Amino acid sequence: MTKKMIQSIRENNPLIHNITNIVVANDSANGLLAIGASPFMSDTLEEMSDIAEIASATVLNMGTLNDYQLATMKQIGISCNQLNKPVILDPVGAGATQYRKKAVYDLLDAVNFTAIKGNAGEIAALAGIEWSSCGVDAGVGDADISDAAKTVAKKYNCLVGVSGEVDIITDGYRIVKIFNGTDYFPKMTGSGCLLSCICGTFLAVANEDEYFEALQLAFESYAIAGEIAASQLSSCLVGSFRMKLLDELSQITDEKVKEMGKIEYVN
Amino acid sequence: MTKKMIQSIRENNPLIHNITNIVVANDSANGLLAIGASPFMSDTLEEMSDIAEIASATVLNMGTLNDYQLATMKQIGISCNQLNKPVILDPVGAGATQYRKKAVYDLLDAVNFTAIKGNAGEIAALAGIEWSSCGVDAGVGDADISDAAKTVAKKYNCLVGVSGEVDIITDGYRIVKIFNGTDYFPKMTGSGCLLSCICGTFLAVANEDEYFEALQLAFESYAIAGEIAASQLSSCLVGSFRMKLLDELSQITDEKVKEMGKIEYVN
Amino acid sequence: MTKKMIQSIRENNPLIHNITNIVVANDSANGLLAIGASPFMSDTLEEMSDIAEIASATVLNMGTLNDYQLATMKQIGISCNQLNKPVILDPVGAGATQYRKKAVYDLLDAVNFTAIKGNAGEIAALAGIEWSSCGVDAGVGDADISDAAKTVAKKYNCLVGVSGEVDIITDGYRIVKIFNGTDYFPKMTGSGCLLSCICGTFLAVANEDEYFEALQLAFESYAIAGEIAASQLSSCLVGSFRMKLLDELSQITDEKVKEMGKIEYVN
Repeated sequence: MTKKMIQSIRENNPLIHNITNIVVANDSANGLLAIGASPFMSDTLEEMSDIAEIASATVLNMGTLNDYQLATMKQIGISCNQLNKPVILDPVGAGATQYRKKAVYDLLDAVNFTAIKGNAGEIAALAGIEWSSCGVDAGVGDADISDAAKTVAKKYNCLVGVSGEVDIITDGYRIVKIFNGTDYFPKMTGSGCLLSCICGTFLAVANEDEYFEALQLAFESYAIAGEIAASQLSSCLVGSFRMKLLDELSQITDEKVKEMGKIEYVN
Repeated sequence: MTKKMIQSIRENNPLIHNITNIVVANDSANGLLAIGASPFMSDTLEEMSDIAEIASATVLNMGTLNDYQLATMKQIGISCNQLNKPVILDPVGAGATQYRKKAVYDLLDAVNFTAIKGNAGEIAALAGIEWSSCGVDAGVGDADISDAAKTVAKKYNCLVGVSGEVDIITDGYRIVKIFNGTDYFPKMTGSGCLLSCICGTFLAVANEDEYFEALQLAFESYAIAGEIAASQLSSCLVGSFRMKLLDELSQITDEKVKEMGKIEYVN
Repeated sequence: MTKKMIQSIRENNPLIHNITNIVVANDSANGLLAIGASPFMSDTLEEMSDIAEIASATVLNMGTLNDYQLATMKQIGISCNQLNKPVILDPVGAGATQYRKKAVYDLLDAVNFTAIKGNAGEIAALAGIEWSSCGVDAGVGDADISDAAKTVAKKYNCLVGVSGEVDIITDGYRIVKIFNGTDYFPKMTGSGCLLSCICGTFLAVANEDEYFEALQLAFESYAIAGEIAASQLSSCLVGSFRMKLLDELSQITDEKVKEMGKIEYVN
């Protein structure tokens, strides 16, 4: 892609709407501001149709889901589909409880997502395969997570991004692996949720035929910002990392991503 | 004013009650503690009358408004009016959706606010003038925002404070402009919400005839704390700014504000 | 205790479930990750029985209580009792409003808590003694808080931990006082809430006959992490403290706690 997406984000300040949770809302909003987007957070049913009109993309995060929020998510998701705007699902803890399992299938039934972004445990849950995740963490498993991601992408006709030591992007056919990142990410609550917001931001400034590359660049940019942040810390300092990640998101450029990106295309 | 308001805040630790949102609640509470106030956050209808009794001021923030919160806001606002205690409105995103527009007029109908604190887009929305704001950001417009602020102040018989590159304080007649600040503020989510909390704190330790000066000093103190925080950062580091703003709020003094304040009285 | 509890936490990553509030949820989750636990935050009634099964301990925080959350707390509390898993109560602002007073007695009636963790004002409220607390702060009073803590522990047949300049742990008979800590704690919102989460974590890796020591070590470890964090700050910088506390929680070890702990056993 010759288009400079981060520059485009900084010039256009796309409004990114988020239905999210009490744990991560602040970091998500600050991370969106840092990359150059304009965050909007609301889960009030009555204003969803107005917000769908003004937002450039919507990110639905299941972190602290309840019935009311689920109804709101469905409504905005359907509006985004009608308006042909990107809508991203972060199925937080999808496999953790029966309630979330049922809810995520409800959502996937009602809304055509542009992309699903999850950790290995969440994508495994959507693919219906065995995985030892517990709670909202990624967990571990024997299955090939690339295959699980492809299965989910094909089933729901959308892009899938899996965060992890190696990130995976797929449209059900192509696979890109991203080797950037830091093991600080799983030690910061909401680091995955913020990545979903960043994905929404990149999709917001992309044309439809650029969505795959946009998702890949979102993952790369975020992983590289984290990598640079971590490189400034001598020992494992999780509080400092959180601050430096926001710093580096505000400093990330298309040039840095091009220079530092470590990716592999798999067929 | 010869009264040392910051010193008075630190000696009296006024209890500031906030109905606020999931994005900014933590920073608002920490900022209140940093300036010397004692934060209380609740939007539970059943405890509003008790809280109105013990709180020295109440700040109502529409950031993630819903019908339940709106009902709670009305009740505590009316209680504050009856008890003659300061009540501050932060009409977050007032112009963004039809729901918020209707809600803010409902609130303004039910409650006599001591002060309304908004950005240019929000105050323009309340004044009913054209403004290109989008979402919860300030936006840009051709209108003279001082006139808009005066209109709102006269219409609702209250003080109005407008945050921006130049801050504006008015009672509908007098105007004070504040030239302190930093362009980090719009890059930190909830920086305006915290300013509203700080306004509540200064009003809480002021007599009624000191309210105008209290609001001005709240804006000045906050802008100067931000200015000092920003001066310590070599490049644009939004994560670091957030931490340093809290640091500097805990270090701000009446003397610093007197020394660094850049204000202009307009007739 | 010869058992190395912090090492055990880091090896086992116990899942700690929290029903908590919008102010502190992020810091609580990050603090849990820093000590080595895996946080889970949900107050959705429909998933409580599933979560009780997978969580190693549950922490109920009344910071922004409402009727819905109260019902959820009762259900998960009862489930924890049936499964014989630790359940901790943080009665935030218990004495502040009639609503909270009634709610906390409802909870104490329905659930057998393993431990109650509060500040002096909250424990005084539960003991039914006079105390000048206001809002959610500790306040001051003449009563002997050790006696109040013992009374509460006996009445509800549980451990009680009181945070303050000197921390107090009791089972109603024995008293341990902890002299570690820093006066930054009351200047950071949610510092007490995070301590409750840390208590849950230590209880999660302890056997029932080790609960007293586990609670004591949780308090000690947290106080010492705060002490180390504060020692790195030249002046009163509340924003920096918050970051450094998380850093030091990720760096705390059984050895540091053994070396730095200042405790007194009272009969």
